[in-house]
Amino acid sequence: MSESELDLTLDAAELTARLVDIPSVSGDEKALADLVENALRGLAHLTVDRHGNNVVARTHLGRAERVVLAGHLDTVPIADNVPSRLDENDVLWGCGTTDMKSGVAVQLRIAATVPEPNRDLTFVFYDQEEVAADLNGLGKVAAAHPDWLTGDFAVLLEPSDAEVEGGCQGTLRVLLRTKGERAHSARSWMGANAIHAASPILAKLAAYEPRRPVIDGLEFHEGLNAVRIEGGVANNVIPDRCTVTVNFRYAPDRSEADALAHVREVFADCDIDEFVVDDSSPGALPGLSHPAAAAFMEAVGGHAMPKFGWTDVSRFSALGVPAVNYGPGDALLAHKVDERVETKAILHCEERLRAWLTS
Amino acid sequence: MSESELDLTLDAAELTARLVDIPSVSGDEKALADLVENALRGLAHLTVDRHGNNVVARTHLGRAERVVLAGHLDTVPIADNVPSRLDENDVLWGCGTTDMKSGVAVQLRIAATVPEPNRDLTFVFYDQEEVAADLNGLGKVAAAHPDWLTGDFAVLLEPSDAEVEGGCQGTLRVLLRTKGERAHSARSWMGANAIHAASPILAKLAAYEPRRPVIDGLEFHEGLNAVRIEGGVANNVIPDRCTVTVNFRYAPDRSEADALAHVREVFADCDIDEFVVDDSSPGALPGLSHPAAAAFMEAVGGHAMPKFGWTDVSRFSALGVPAVNYGPGDALLAHKVDERVETKAILHCEERLRAWLTS
Repeated sequence: MSESELDLTLDAAELTARLVDIPSVSGDEKALADLVENALRGLAHLTVDRHGNNVVARTHLGRAERVVLAGHLDTVPIADNVPSRLDENDVLWGCGTTDMKSGVAVQLRIAATVPEPNRDLTFVFYDQEEVAADLNGLGKVAAAHPDWLTGDFAVLLEPSDAEVEGGCQGTLRVLLRTKGERAHSARSWMGANAIHAASPILAKLAAYEPRRPVIDGLEFHEGLNAVRIEGGVANNVIPDRCTVTVNFRYAPDRSEADALAHVREVFADCDIDEFVVDDSSPGALPGLSHPAAAAFMEAVGGHAMPKFGWTDVSRFSALGVPAVNYGPGDALLAHKVDERVETKAILHCEERLRAWLTS
Repeated sequence: MSESELDLTLDAAELTARLVDIPSVSGDEKALADLVENALRGLAHLTVDRHGNNVVARTHLGRAERVVLAGHLDTVPIADNVPSRLDENDVLWGCGTTDMKSGVAVQLRIAATVPEPNRDLTFVFYDQEEVAADLNGLGKVAAAHPDWLTGDFAVLLEPSDAEVEGGCQGTLRVLLRTKGERAHSARSWMGANAIHAASPILAKLAAYEPRRPVIDGLEFHEGLNAVRIEGGVANNVIPDRCTVTVNFRYAPDRSEADALAHVREVFADCDIDEFVVDDSSPGALPGLSHPAAAAFMEAVGGHAMPKFGWTDVSRFSALGVPAVNYGPGDALLAHKVDERVETKAILHCEERLRAWLTS
């Protein structure tokens, strides 16, 4: 076994350490993608495709259902926390240990050790998840080769502490701009104050009562918030412009269009000069009522939780594939200098997925 | 008459041109202050004192009243508008023509040509009016030699289009800071939004009804305005901090302390985390009921107007000397590249002041 090959006979924890020791900061995933592709090409039961630094491997056993196991290869920038380090409590430290090379290791172990799964399998390894949405490798594969991603159900092995996180909330960001007229503040009645004109906007936000709809048994929790406000010209000038940046996080029973219509309605009587849609990403329904999802829930145990933040499960949802997050590690440790994962959590996830796919 | 002397036999318009051609941008007034001092020392009826680049000249005739004529020597930076230029319509163009070398020329002409005024006279020429308040030469003389500035009434020869502007409004700037707690905007209920917490502040501002009190026959006009607002951490973070900068311009029947108490009261129930006084300058009462002022009004004609912005008349007011602005030129042309003054306006002001002081 040379330095230039991944040894898929290592257990998932050892394999995670090996993956962490191969840097793959967003935009620099080629070395790791090459190793993953080569390792998968050595497995006779899989066909392997590649698009850029995205690798997709599939079984073709003619099973009644197909499930997708997906994970990203990239990490945030290394913060002096590579190579990995295993401490005396079997905790593995290092950049990507939790987000999400432990999940990738589990994918690779399932690929290597389950040649005859009870459902056809698709393994997706993609790049640039940690950067701007338009660079995201999963999005690029979805655009170029949507047929590679078809399936009945998908599991993203993002860190979820081995709990199932179903669906995800959508996010919409709008800029609300009010207009006024400049004047010297000593003669303020000669102008019109754009910051004062934003008062009804803040009043609507402060009074907003977010919905908490239950979907597929999961209680989501919406939120409508100002995330920025900016206005002012000089300390003696009545400002002619004020901008409130509003972020709406919405449950997946609303479409992108519904969400936008709702926000427009909330601020309908606020005398807004410019209403700019700055960013929009749809939510994803949990899809837990699908038979493949139900079987998955039964195999992994526990109860599903709603995913409040936006994740790539939404990309699968847009392709008509219900998806959940399920992976080792605590998401709150992601992107931190002291990122780490318990090795037993990695092995637990691997075992639960194998149980689901071989029972 | 050498280049190094001012010729006070020139008429006030010619003298203005001569003064404009001697650059005296704030901080660089020494050359002009030297010329002014030397010219005044040549006048036997005056005693002359100097403090830094501030020159004070006084008669000592034992008159029942003493009036002060004051003006600043400095200008804003030259904008390729020096030397001065007299056009075919007798309009004088150049930096300082209106603000306020024409006023200074009138002061110098009165000093030179009215050796036996009906009231004792004090002429004040000071530096650094166009820059930070703590550099202001009038303020420095007031601190070091308040006796030089005593009087019954003062006229600042700032451009007022030869209308009398009485008193000035005070100005108070406060920072109102609200506090929240950061959280990811997808889980906004885990935090507290400091921008939303500023909503009651903006509501108070938008609903505020300013007073328009009549003082000494002049209608002032207050104003309470947000001049800046800032809040926000990142587009996906509930902000923990928001700052509203509020400017209160108040009529001179309120003291600084009254004004501050009023602003505190307006926002008393707004749940403000920090209330910071950022700037405060008191207003000045018009003092038009004083006999010297009444005689002045009668001599110059027209009707007095309230001064809404803050001016150095407030410094005289603080010394117990009622003061007004009265000078040639349009204040709206001050600080502009196309700054200019009609020569007849300069001569008119000189004549009106002479009439008052010799009748």
